[in-house]
Amino acid sequence: MQLTRAADYAVRVMIHLATLPAGTRVHRDGLAAAAEVPAHFLSKVLQSLGRAGLILGQRGTSGGFALAVPADQVSVLRVVEAVEGPLQLNVCLIGIAGCSRQGWCPAHAVWVEAQAALTQVLKNASIARLAREVRAPGQDQVVFPWN
Amino acid sequence: MQLTRAADYAVRVMIHLATLPAGTRVHRDGLAAAAEVPAHFLSKVLQSLGRAGLILGQRGTSGGFALAVPADQVSVLRVVEAVEGPLQLNVCLIGIAGCSRQGWCPAHAVWVEAQAALTQVLKNASIARLAREVRAPGQDQVVFPWN
Repeated sequence: MQLTRAADYAVRVMIHLATLPAGTRVHRDGLAAAAEVPAHFLSKVLQSLGRAGLILGQRGTSGGFALAVPADQVSVLRVVEAVEGPLQLNVCLIGIAGCSRQGWCPAHAVWVEAQAALTQVLKNASIARLAREVRAPGQDQVVFPWN
Repeated sequence: MQLTRAADYAVRVMIHLATLPAGTRVHRDGLAAAAEVPAHFLSKVLQSLGRAGLILGQRGTSGGFALAVPADQVSVLRVVEAVEGPLQLNVCLIGIAGCSRQGWCPAHAVWVEAQAALTQVLKNASIARLAREVRAPGQDQVVFPWN
């Protein structure tokens, strides 16, 4: 029961983009360095974020990647689900497939409650808020540890 | 970010054993049927539960598997961790390895909070309580749907 590396990296990428002035485009190398994402992973992460409509990519020397949605409208949950698909803590919570034990199995309610608790935390964490928290201790200015 | 099948099956096995009178031993076939665990999975599940000191196995015709600990002292969290190891929602939460970004990365606090919320729900759910909830709607008697 662990977050995938791709989802972790996707959250890092989104936070980095959200620390920059609106519309700022960042090249692939810049994103890889800032989010500390291995190059072979970055393509997958950027594809997932692009498909979910969270970032926009533009080719060329003046191109790069930028947020496609205001960061205050994007939660960590949305980023995780862009990469991993809908959060389903246990297979018995997948609506379509269902579970023959669902009607009586008392564990089902525990998985439902656990998933709700997890979802709530990730939903409450907006990328904009996290970007504002990228600060050195005691400083008022945003600092970028990767500079 | 999904529970492993083995952990799901382990919780089912523990709940089934907890529905039975104290000291009742159940053969492998009975457990496989009750918990709907594929045979090739059951060995791994029983080994994990045994190693964690949650069940005891005895060979022979009068043998079988039984709880090694009172079910009210066992939480779903303990069963999950017996199979999956300590719950770590993200690799950055693994104390030993640490994470170079931990001091300033705002996502770290979100993973800590999400893990705490998840842990709390699983810790609060005791196997004994879940075993008592294995009932048909409107009935006072415990029923076993697999009979």
